[in-house]
Amino acid sequence: MALIVQKFGGSSVADAEKVKNVANRVVETARDNNQVVVVVSAQGDTTDDLIEKAQEINPKASKREMDMLLSSGEQISIALLAMAIENLEYPVISLTGWQAGFKTNSSAGNARIDKIDVERIQSELDKHKIVIVAGFQGIDKYDNITTLGRGGSDTSAVALAAALRANKCEIYTDVDGVYTTDPRIVPDAVKLEEITYDEMLELASLGANVLHNRSVEMAKKYNVQLEVKSSFQRVPGTIVKEVIPMEKMLIRGVTRDNDVARIAIIGLEDTPGIAFKVFSALAKDGINVDMILQSIGHDGKKDIVFTVTKSNLDKTIATLESLKETVPYQELSHRDNLSKVSIVGAGMVNNPGVAAKMFEALFDASINIHMIATSELKVSVLINIENAERAVQVIHDKFMK
Amino acid sequence: MALIVQKFGGSSVADAEKVKNVANRVVETARDNNQVVVVVSAQGDTTDDLIEKAQEINPKASKREMDMLLSSGEQISIALLAMAIENLEYPVISLTGWQAGFKTNSSAGNARIDKIDVERIQSELDKHKIVIVAGFQGIDKYDNITTLGRGGSDTSAVALAAALRANKCEIYTDVDGVYTTDPRIVPDAVKLEEITYDEMLELASLGANVLHNRSVEMAKKYNVQLEVKSSFQRVPGTIVKEVIPMEKMLIRGVTRDNDVARIAIIGLEDTPGIAFKVFSALAKDGINVDMILQSIGHDGKKDIVFTVTKSNLDKTIATLESLKETVPYQELSHRDNLSKVSIVGAGMVNNPGVAAKMFEALFDASINIHMIATSELKVSVLINIENAERAVQVIHDKFMK
Repeated sequence: MALIVQKFGGSSVADAEKVKNVANRVVETARDNNQVVVVVSAQGDTTDDLIEKAQEINPKASKREMDMLLSSGEQISIALLAMAIENLEYPVISLTGWQAGFKTNSSAGNARIDKIDVERIQSELDKHKIVIVAGFQGIDKYDNITTLGRGGSDTSAVALAAALRANKCEIYTDVDGVYTTDPRIVPDAVKLEEITYDEMLELASLGANVLHNRSVEMAKKYNVQLEVKSSFQRVPGTIVKEVIPMEKMLIRGVTRDNDVARIAIIGLEDTPGIAFKVFSALAKDGINVDMILQSIGHDGKKDIVFTVTKSNLDKTIATLESLKETVPYQELSHRDNLSKVSIVGAGMVNNPGVAAKMFEALFDASINIHMIATSELKVSVLINIENAERAVQVIHDKFMK
Repeated sequence: MALIVQKFGGSSVADAEKVKNVANRVVETARDNNQVVVVVSAQGDTTDDLIEKAQEINPKASKREMDMLLSSGEQISIALLAMAIENLEYPVISLTGWQAGFKTNSSAGNARIDKIDVERIQSELDKHKIVIVAGFQGIDKYDNITTLGRGGSDTSAVALAAALRANKCEIYTDVDGVYTTDPRIVPDAVKLEEITYDEMLELASLGANVLHNRSVEMAKKYNVQLEVKSSFQRVPGTIVKEVIPMEKMLIRGVTRDNDVARIAIIGLEDTPGIAFKVFSALAKDGINVDMILQSIGHDGKKDIVFTVTKSNLDKTIATLESLKETVPYQELSHRDNLSKVSIVGAGMVNNPGVAAKMFEALFDASINIHMIATSELKVSVLINIENAERAVQVIHDKFMK
């Protein structure tokens, strides 16, 4: 008998019919001689509706009360899913985050899981019940309800799979697996049967909205085998695990990310420690910097160019302006009509020709590259946003055909 | 400094404007040098909407999962009210039933409060916060969420006032107090300044939907001073307490209750123990009997006539039919187009003329009486439903003018 954790997102339980569909899948898995723990998100638009209610009353509501409000969303969906399973005459019980033993720190709205006391879940499993757990939520040491922030339900599921030493954690979504690129852009995108945690991490952080990074990091840390599957179709998904057999294909996927803004600091003094001062000031203000390019100094001056997410653009400029007295420069420029297109694959590091092949594809399509960044697992280029879809297409064609 | 528990029902927090209105009243009370604990119900139609969602999925859902579902309604309203109070810049915290320490038995859907551990509430009050508590809910000893059933939020408020030894428990409703009769029927109905627990109990059980009986019983038991007030108007309400000064007015109110069905068992044998057998069988099946009339036996036969709520009519007939072998009778008859009209008042027992005066009013209006029941605090008559409003009017005129 295997222990399987299944996670269903908000769109998978959006209405009564979909809840019943999920109930069928869950009971099927249980009747297949498995113990099943199900993690569920709030239904469809519930969270947005609740946020709207809060906005009407107090746009600056505390995070503590927002968590109290939003956590009701999963409480509704776990109860409804449990009822649907009762209707199929399988023993079942729903548990909120605190009932399921999720203990977090006190960062309301963005809490981290400290530990999961699995006694209650274990005792319900021992009574041969399917256990439905509210994702995205827990309690801190003062018994305040907390939520886990973005990607919270995926993280709940993986953390639970780790704590219960489950054999597998299945993440059910709108798509039926992880593709070599967005199938809406490139119709001949290929579904991957398997992928490593590290490759998945690069794909996720590059804008393939399948699994949130936090959950993949946790899966890697505790060696939880993940499978990304479709909630609606009965087809095999993509398995995410530590090591996968060597394959011919060097790259795993092509992604694009339009949430990118570029800032150029022009005319910095070419003295040691300048980059350190700039980036530590940004880090202190909580700004994550992605790609960095530093020009070679001449005439006693140099430039630093880097990217941040669009939401951090204003904050970044403010930080740099306040820095001007201690770190003098001539001017700042910025633009945000850009896209970062990347190729990801574990085999890349030993194949220097991969980057060149990517650049060739872009050159053939007359797409200009503004910046380049590489790592062991990926090559990213910054290009004009209007070229992004075409870039994904031509790079995919180059590697996959 | 006084400690006041305020309870606001679902219609008082039905939308953003109403939530803000409640927040204003609560903060006003707190700024008036009071400690304030607020008990809130689910917003307007939330509970009905959630029940509908459940019905779509499983009309026979377990009570345990219904409680999980429904308790989310108050969680939403406490968070929203806390946000509205934050907006007025007063320190505040919301607590669910379990966070507030409500421990109940395990009767899902109709739980009884065993005790309230008030440490958390007390510690938040000590931090000079307004404390918002979810009414209607608690947890059992296994940490399952339970709901208190009908009148639950009133009961939560009174129980909390008792546990905290509050100076007062204010129940805010649609109406601005307890009236001598329904002001929608009799425009010159008079608002009572004060009323005793026992009188309130009689009024409540007779269909004056202001306070649920459970909460009044608990208030009487723990001597909690209640005040029924309007959520929307700033006028004094009605105070419910143990003893009130003697007053000229003998009767406190005139009520009607249309949820009544009459059953007649015709031609029972006139032997001892017949009534016992009939009513113990009904009690065993959980059927509450209200008015009872037994005819004087002759020809070796007698009849028993009694009333139940309409929802119990079918069950009552089934019970009586299954009883026919052991308690033979000639026939059963029943009707439900009836209304019970009552007068209530503590002074009544020592004034035999009160009942006569009531009957006179009905006689003058040519309203026929089917049954009569009296107690220390009330006189009730069963009449045709089409005469009910007129009966309330003429009785009220007779006593109040």
